[in-house]
Amino acid sequence: MANISSTIPEKTIERLSEYRRTLLKCHAQGITHIFSHVLAGMHGITAVQVRRDLMLIGFSSDTKKGYDVKVLIDFINGILYSEQPMNMAIIGMGHLGQAVTKYFNGKGLKLRVTAAFDIDEKKVDTMIDNIPCYHIAEFEERVDELDISIVIVTSPTSVAANLVLPIINAGIKGVLNFTSAPLNFPQGIVVENYDITTLLEKVAYFVKIAEENA
Amino acid sequence: MANISSTIPEKTIERLSEYRRTLLKCHAQGITHIFSHVLAGMHGITAVQVRRDLMLIGFSSDTKKGYDVKVLIDFINGILYSEQPMNMAIIGMGHLGQAVTKYFNGKGLKLRVTAAFDIDEKKVDTMIDNIPCYHIAEFEERVDELDISIVIVTSPTSVAANLVLPIINAGIKGVLNFTSAPLNFPQGIVVENYDITTLLEKVAYFVKIAEENA
Repeated sequence: MANISSTIPEKTIERLSEYRRTLLKCHAQGITHIFSHVLAGMHGITAVQVRRDLMLIGFSSDTKKGYDVKVLIDFINGILYSEQPMNMAIIGMGHLGQAVTKYFNGKGLKLRVTAAFDIDEKKVDTMIDNIPCYHIAEFEERVDELDISIVIVTSPTSVAANLVLPIINAGIKGVLNFTSAPLNFPQGIVVENYDITTLLEKVAYFVKIAEENA
Repeated sequence: MANISSTIPEKTIERLSEYRRTLLKCHAQGITHIFSHVLAGMHGITAVQVRRDLMLIGFSSDTKKGYDVKVLIDFINGILYSEQPMNMAIIGMGHLGQAVTKYFNGKGLKLRVTAAFDIDEKKVDTMIDNIPCYHIAEFEERVDELDISIVIVTSPTSVAANLVLPIINAGIKGVLNFTSAPLNFPQGIVVENYDITTLLEKVAYFVKIAEENA
């Protein structure tokens, strides 16, 4: 994670997010307690890893019956989420932007996609998946009005670099960049880059290695 | 990267994929040579990192004029890509599946999305973005016929677990999982999990930390 240091490692944060989703499902099924090795098995990792992650966030419990599912969910919520909900905006309401919006709508998270931005006349000033879509020209004004902290960049790669200055000027705190344009932000703005092409080339490379070693 | 070991670290592979894209753009603009610090600057990293990555893959050159762009592109291609093109399939041709397909069509990579699978009657047996969409019931048969090595899972999370056995039985070598269902595959199958919800929760967590430390 560029730019920000934290006492809890990035990978632990990722796993906590995943544990939480699994625990919510267990809770919905009426499961009240879960052992570390069972939770671990559901995620294809070791019980040691689960226990280490929970130790890192200061969670301890009497483990005779396993972790209390509800208590653990609340504890992880306290770590992951701030008191206030965080508002997010999508820049680029094409297929990827709409896919990301659908991932979030209705998941009951404190993270909400509250606005989308685009330049497509057919999309601007309409509601898409219950999200208002504004023209990118209104970006700084809407970010301020809607108290948006995080943007998800799903625009065409070719225009992504033009978004850097407006994002900085609007006071955005976090950026999740799905384009293949490397976006450079100053220290203090949290940035995650996830270019799908890179991910796929990585999988293809390791498949090649696996076949060479087979 | 679960399941596969390689002498070249994962992060280096990711950066090589990114360098290659930048170098292709430079080449298209007629740029013949590039210094390590310039390439590094374009990616927001240090020249030392670039040089270390290239050293790891065995690339050396006379650096008075900088790296020869064409030679470096070819060298990286030799590392990343196998001789044969790799065929990939999308499982779940919703917004995310179509977004991923569009990312790949026309990029001139050796990786090609050659088929898509879905259950939606309106999509099955049609061409979407020049890709034939088959019913998931035909999965194993088509994988064999079309020599598919890698699948990209962009189905609804609720059905993702049902795909594990068919993927294994069809002899798939690599899986890129975009759902929030943790999918457990045996050793030997390359798996990358990229759940968008986890990524966003991670950005939100680090934004929270940054605000607490501000």
